[in-house]
Amino acid sequence: MTSSLRTPDPNPGWLSEFALAETRSRVPILYVEAVPARVDSLGQIEQIGVLLRTSPATGEITRTLVSGRVFHGESLRDALQRNIEKDLGPTAFPRLPVNLVPAAVAEYFPLPGVAPLHDPRQHAVALVYVVPVTGECNPRQDALELTWLSPEDALKPSLLEDLEGGRGQLLKQALAWSGAIV
Amino acid sequence: MTSSLRTPDPNPGWLSEFALAETRSRVPILYVEAVPARVDSLGQIEQIGVLLRTSPATGEITRTLVSGRVFHGESLRDALQRNIEKDLGPTAFPRLPVNLVPAAVAEYFPLPGVAPLHDPRQHAVALVYVVPVTGECNPRQDALELTWLSPEDALKPSLLEDLEGGRGQLLKQALAWSGAIV
Amino acid sequence: MTSSLRTPDPNPGWLSEFALAETRSRVPILYVEAVPARVDSLGQIEQIGVLLRTSPATGEITRTLVSGRVFHGESLRDALQRNIEKDLGPTAFPRLPVNLVPAAVAEYFPLPGVAPLHDPRQHAVALVYVVPVTGECNPRQDALELTWLSPEDALKPSLLEDLEGGRGQLLKQALAWSGAIV
Amino acid sequence: MTSSLRTPDPNPGWLSEFALAETRSRVPILYVEAVPARVDSLGQIEQIGVLLRTSPATGEITRTLVSGRVFHGESLRDALQRNIEKDLGPTAFPRLPVNLVPAAVAEYFPLPGVAPLHDPRQHAVALVYVVPVTGECNPRQDALELTWLSPEDALKPSLLEDLEGGRGQLLKQALAWSGAIV
Repeated sequence: MTSSLRTPDPNPGWLSEFALAETRSRVPILYVEAVPARVDSLGQIEQIGVLLRTSPATGEITRTLVSGRVFHGESLRDALQRNIEKDLGPTAFPRLPVNLVPAAVAEYFPLPGVAPLHDPRQHAVALVYVVPVTGECNPRQDALELTWLSPEDALKPSLLEDLEGGRGQLLKQALAWSGAIV
Repeated sequence: MTSSLRTPDPNPGWLSEFALAETRSRVPILYVEAVPARVDSLGQIEQIGVLLRTSPATGEITRTLVSGRVFHGESLRDALQRNIEKDLGPTAFPRLPVNLVPAAVAEYFPLPGVAPLHDPRQHAVALVYVVPVTGECNPRQDALELTWLSPEDALKPSLLEDLEGGRGQLLKQALAWSGAIV
Repeated sequence: MTSSLRTPDPNPGWLSEFALAETRSRVPILYVEAVPARVDSLGQIEQIGVLLRTSPATGEITRTLVSGRVFHGESLRDALQRNIEKDLGPTAFPRLPVNLVPAAVAEYFPLPGVAPLHDPRQHAVALVYVVPVTGECNPRQDALELTWLSPEDALKPSLLEDLEGGRGQLLKQALAWSGAIV
Repeated sequence: MTSSLRTPDPNPGWLSEFALAETRSRVPILYVEAVPARVDSLGQIEQIGVLLRTSPATGEITRTLVSGRVFHGESLRDALQRNIEKDLGPTAFPRLPVNLVPAAVAEYFPLPGVAPLHDPRQHAVALVYVVPVTGECNPRQDALELTWLSPEDALKPSLLEDLEGGRGQLLKQALAWSGAIV
């Protein structure tokens, strides 16, 4: 199947800082994002996970979603799994969606204010999924903490405003998509 | 949450044969249908399950999908779980979808030929889901056998034509929705 | 094509008050609902339409969406068009969706409080669509007035609370689905 | 609204051949694709449009869909409109979708055979939409001809095999998504 195969790739996903900066000035960069969710036996969302972390862009402590670049030659499913593991650890046991059509498509532009979502580093387009996780989550890397919230608590304005880059709107969209109370 | 609550219901989902026949002549009847799927660790479909059973309508042996009526007062999630358990047994361990928006909406009309899907008993509208199952399936009731097929085998014309009521088209739609090879 | 064909139907969509009440006590009743929208040349929502009307259930003046039953033998597309014409008049010129998979599935239960959406008359399940309209809207029947609102104004709590049967949540879902500012 | 605003962009979407080749070796390139459709008054697909053109990659005459890169700083809606105009001319009058969540997500890898879709130039990810067009289409640039086909004719194996890069599968997915006969 597609996702277990990769075409030979002399240029790995990893890019030097210089090459990445240059690339970011040329084309929109493709991301995957995930809203981790605890679901009940009927598939309904009980809690969603929000990351507290130090923004690589500004050094501030902010809240965010699971998020990461799709590498050259990497399938979307592999990118989604890799980035969930990067942010939630190897025992999160995510249930990736059957259908790769996302819950939302997010467009980030470099300047704040011109669009609801912004990313000072780049023009980015993210495919956003709601992903049930069934195991234990141990945030890694720059993720400091994972907070589980009920949909009601996640939708409080104070939390939504804390989400990095305007992702409060994105979280509302993902919860509305899933039919959780909005 | 919605699905665990039911309003008091003096008229249970079960209806007498007479009341059901009368109701079927008055309004479209709401169904849920499921395509059971085995998925790999990345969420991709490896196999889908097709039921071999005796059609209650004609007595013929036909192939079909998991399917059943939504009862009065029953939530869609409860109806989906109940009908999966009815057709696949109590140890199928389905993973119901986070989002109740279906993979396809199927409209069945009583006369064959006027629309791709038909049901001689009634005008029915079905919400169709692709549902990963992780446990052991033991078909019950009038379901004689569950066959697991790769998407490629499921899409062979000989199998599609065997599916009851024109559901071959529905299976193609569900597999296309899931991005499985079509 | 499906929607222009109807199977012969000795029992028309119209039911006597008695037959309708009896049917409502037996099975969930299928509805279609529409959020009428004015869109710009790029397909983005500029305004959505909300109906002000006298609720047939309570006699109160309430806000609501375009909504109506699917008749026996009627296709979903025909039902959607008929109900839009019923509520917005014959010159609304709706653009029905290419894909019948709805923006949201709404479940109404007879008792308030057990679920976000309720309908004192019945257990109803509605397929909800966002439908651009391009012509002039002249509400008919019991619809007193159609108000066009920007997504921002439509999402103000005071308006959402006025929507009949808990449809404020449904409107939020539909706007989130469409990517309009939420 | 988002799509009419663009952040200042010192690096236009247009890239030199060298910069584009270099970028293609570093990151997946984001595309939008469209299946142009003629729909009836109820929104159902009557015909879809397929382009006959000279492949820039191989010089062969092939069939393809409307397709093009998303430029740096360009919104998805602007990219979709620009590429439809590039391939169908300025009087096609497309009706862009209300919802940017695509009908399908397509992943192209550089080597044929490893995945259903391939593009010898690059790793590309395309968001695929079904777009009703209401005006006159006059293919421009390297597009030689636009052919309108019924869904039945479009799904004939001989046509599907002619579609460039494996897009026959993609067309099947888009038609299945739209509920057209598959």
